[in-house]
Amino acid sequence: MRRWNGWGESAVTHQIPRSAYSRLAQWVGESSPTGDVTLESVIHHIPDSRLAHHPMITDDRETRVRHARGQSVPDWVALRSGRIGRVPDGVVFPTSENQVSEILRWALDNQVVLIPYGGGTSVVGHINVISDQPTVTVNLSKLNQLLDIDEVSHLASFGAGISGPELEIHLQTRGFTLGHLPQSFELSTLGGWIATRSTGQQSCRYGKIERLFAGCNMISPIGPLTIKHSPASAAGPDLRELVLGSEGRMGIITKATMRISRIPQSESYRAYFFPDFASGVSAVKEMVQERIPASMLRLSSSDETMTTLALAGMDLLVALLGKALNLFGISEGKCMLITGVAGTDKQTRQSNSSIWRLARKHGGMITGKYIGDQWYKTRFTTPYLRNHLWELGYVIDTLETATSWRKLTQLIPAIETAIHDSVRPTGERVHVFTHVSHVYQDGASIYTSILFRAKPDPDETLNLWRRIKTAASESISASNATISHQHGIGVDHAPYLLAEKGELGVSAIHAAAKLFDPRGIMNPGKLVTTEN
Amino acid sequence: MRRWNGWGESAVTHQIPRSAYSRLAQWVGESSPTGDVTLESVIHHIPDSRLAHHPMITDDRETRVRHARGQSVPDWVALRSGRIGRVPDGVVFPTSENQVSEILRWALDNQVVLIPYGGGTSVVGHINVISDQPTVTVNLSKLNQLLDIDEVSHLASFGAGISGPELEIHLQTRGFTLGHLPQSFELSTLGGWIATRSTGQQSCRYGKIERLFAGCNMISPIGPLTIKHSPASAAGPDLRELVLGSEGRMGIITKATMRISRIPQSESYRAYFFPDFASGVSAVKEMVQERIPASMLRLSSSDETMTTLALAGMDLLVALLGKALNLFGISEGKCMLITGVAGTDKQTRQSNSSIWRLARKHGGMITGKYIGDQWYKTRFTTPYLRNHLWELGYVIDTLETATSWRKLTQLIPAIETAIHDSVRPTGERVHVFTHVSHVYQDGASIYTSILFRAKPDPDETLNLWRRIKTAASESISASNATISHQHGIGVDHAPYLLAEKGELGVSAIHAAAKLFDPRGIMNPGKLVTTEN
Repeated sequence: MRRWNGWGESAVTHQIPRSAYSRLAQWVGESSPTGDVTLESVIHHIPDSRLAHHPMITDDRETRVRHARGQSVPDWVALRSGRIGRVPDGVVFPTSENQVSEILRWALDNQVVLIPYGGGTSVVGHINVISDQPTVTVNLSKLNQLLDIDEVSHLASFGAGISGPELEIHLQTRGFTLGHLPQSFELSTLGGWIATRSTGQQSCRYGKIERLFAGCNMISPIGPLTIKHSPASAAGPDLRELVLGSEGRMGIITKATMRISRIPQSESYRAYFFPDFASGVSAVKEMVQERIPASMLRLSSSDETMTTLALAGMDLLVALLGKALNLFGISEGKCMLITGVAGTDKQTRQSNSSIWRLARKHGGMITGKYIGDQWYKTRFTTPYLRNHLWELGYVIDTLETATSWRKLTQLIPAIETAIHDSVRPTGERVHVFTHVSHVYQDGASIYTSILFRAKPDPDETLNLWRRIKTAASESISASNATISHQHGIGVDHAPYLLAEKGELGVSAIHAAAKLFDPRGIMNPGKLVTTEN
Repeated sequence: MRRWNGWGESAVTHQIPRSAYSRLAQWVGESSPTGDVTLESVIHHIPDSRLAHHPMITDDRETRVRHARGQSVPDWVALRSGRIGRVPDGVVFPTSENQVSEILRWALDNQVVLIPYGGGTSVVGHINVISDQPTVTVNLSKLNQLLDIDEVSHLASFGAGISGPELEIHLQTRGFTLGHLPQSFELSTLGGWIATRSTGQQSCRYGKIERLFAGCNMISPIGPLTIKHSPASAAGPDLRELVLGSEGRMGIITKATMRISRIPQSESYRAYFFPDFASGVSAVKEMVQERIPASMLRLSSSDETMTTLALAGMDLLVALLGKALNLFGISEGKCMLITGVAGTDKQTRQSNSSIWRLARKHGGMITGKYIGDQWYKTRFTTPYLRNHLWELGYVIDTLETATSWRKLTQLIPAIETAIHDSVRPTGERVHVFTHVSHVYQDGASIYTSILFRAKPDPDETLNLWRRIKTAASESISASNATISHQHGIGVDHAPYLLAEKGELGVSAIHAAAKLFDPRGIMNPGKLVTTEN
């Protein structure tokens, strides 16, 4: 059973070691659990559905509560405190494109707002009910079939509601993989990845979802948009860009054709340590600009390096590692780089050897496979830590952007400083740590995690979060970096879209939304809003 | 001086050897020159400009003639026969973004149509005057500055009117390259590449222009659209897709920020021969799907292999080659693959070795560097052959598409057969040959050349061409392949856009054009028209 007010399966927990508790206190102070409300009490308090009966739509109260919120900090505060806000009036689980069309027609006729729902893992409010009109959430999890596979051309089509694990099982039993592994992989869906421009951990090899996405059906209020596959085309603007990042504003993605790859013969993950972040950045930059075929280059700041190792409970290892690295002049301020390579055995050997050469050139030391393998094993369990930390009275959140290599090394401290400054007036502290995880020839993504104490009053927790989020977003926006590299706009990033896209740019997205959804029933309040 | 009625610089010629004349006759019959009209006579016959005086706009008759037509077969027939059709009423050469804005305002006030003009190399009618309204061609060649270079992030910004050679000189003197080398490279411009979604010969390494294009200024009738650079972003639809392939319909691209690369330490070109086309396709497909880092994989059909070698006058070489390849069972029907690799010395060695391994696996034989180096030396001179062949009484044209690997091997003969069938009722013959030159994991481009006799009556020549073009386009469209991989839509491909993009897709492009250009002054009749 899925957790109704946190991450993942109820049966799965992932805890930090007892030894790390003191570190939390050291970073942001002692804390205590806030005490969560029960699902029953939330269910009891939600308003009745305003919908007339419809055979496909359920107005079951628990189902409605379970579709009301995603995974952002405001969502968690809402669910844990019981101040849940608006919930959908109904939820529908279409089993075919025809049913999706039918729901759209019905919604148009009845002025009902629709919210497309994939895995419910949005961290920026994509699936929240904003409008006060009657609202139905369209859960697409039953459109989860493998529809077609072309093993010659390395293409496969799926129902867009298919989850990461379902999709990979279909492909891997045939010797293929999509290779798209966001941290939300176990719950998130293909359609959600496309609608929010998701990025997977192995993006150096497979690219962002944009590169994997080769065609689709999207059913809009004015009819279906079918985008045919072509390996490349010069036939005018690429319509895939009306679907990528559309966040449910243009229609409901029902089917997607994806570029797939043969499962690589071998994969290998390694950890390197650099004496400081700047050397690590130089190394990673040179690796990608020299076109070393890595699948992943994930460089942690010294704060993140220390935090990761502490939370993983690798105390003994850290001590040993510290001694060993000291011999090479790598001590305080050391930064960890996890590298992934994939391909034929020969390709992975060659890639590892090129990576090692460039790491050495920039003062890096390899520490073998152990830490890399550990990272690989726990790569989807990290979000479960959020549950455990919340239960200890700590809130964790992440925010992300991308910028050019030239601006990167200034932007990271700018964001971190803005975050620290934002909470200073409250007397609270925030622990901040950052990594660079998606690298391009012209720049990289920045992924910053924040940890702070939950307050007994949920409004105070929310206020703390809002201070941090606003300060970080303003700092990103002021430096002309993108407000999101991989999470999308949703509600939380909407105020910053205008600065990023410009007035004409936002008008163009509005115009497309107006074309496909003239009556404004598709996920209003997300992406482009009446304010931006 | 630029040729006014053919390709390239007047001083440059590129001829086929006398020995190849008999092959032309053998392929399509003896022919004789059609006799071209003079520039003076064309100038004499064009109508007067309908514009009132404007200090920035020239109505010089020769300048207007020189901006009336591109490089398509209908363009050549028009220019060579003197039936030139509509010419612009004036030409303007803005020297700044402000001047572009000024011209746009003036055009709006005076209901004048504007046609953005880069290098004038369109082969599908992009720069032709379609509307009967007063028309001004906006020649952007004076916006040709390097505006900014970020050597850390591998980014450079240019005025969009900069030509290929100008751009590469700026970059190469600093150790960089854009790596975008379409066959039109010497004349075409950055803005033209972007507006038509151009592809360069080394696309395996550098990507289509889409991947290189990182930001821009586009001045539209309702104001400037500035797209900021980000290495990647999840902030809603990517606005670059409003500019890429916009073909002058949305506005005038004045500045573009491009992803650049360090000049590779080494490059190497080699030729392989395969016993038949299917083996060559299998080899190339496996090379790209195994992610061998080639810069170019260019596989010719057996007809093209034979044609290329014959037109290059390599008779002795061909005889020797024939004997050598015979020993390995490669004879009639042999197909040539030219490979390019680039990178560090070690990377090019490794890539060449991987390519050789996979070529051998599929029955291919390497023939060393000579043919590859020859191809490299003449890679921009091939279009000059068109001049020479025309002067001998032969018309040459090319058409192109892209499709999945699964469909590729059926689509090529389908196109070639449709072409042959189309001319049969006329009693004429057409020589057809094809290569695959831009390869992707999911498919490849198809590039088909046609050669036929010019007729004394230009209408008959045009009629022949139209039969061929229509048959090929219908065959491409019927198989759901893209109507263009690298030349764009313009006028000639516009009838096929609806089938490719669907009704909603075309509506979306119309809506964007309507937003940016509500009065319809930007390059009407191209891309989306009142008919599609």
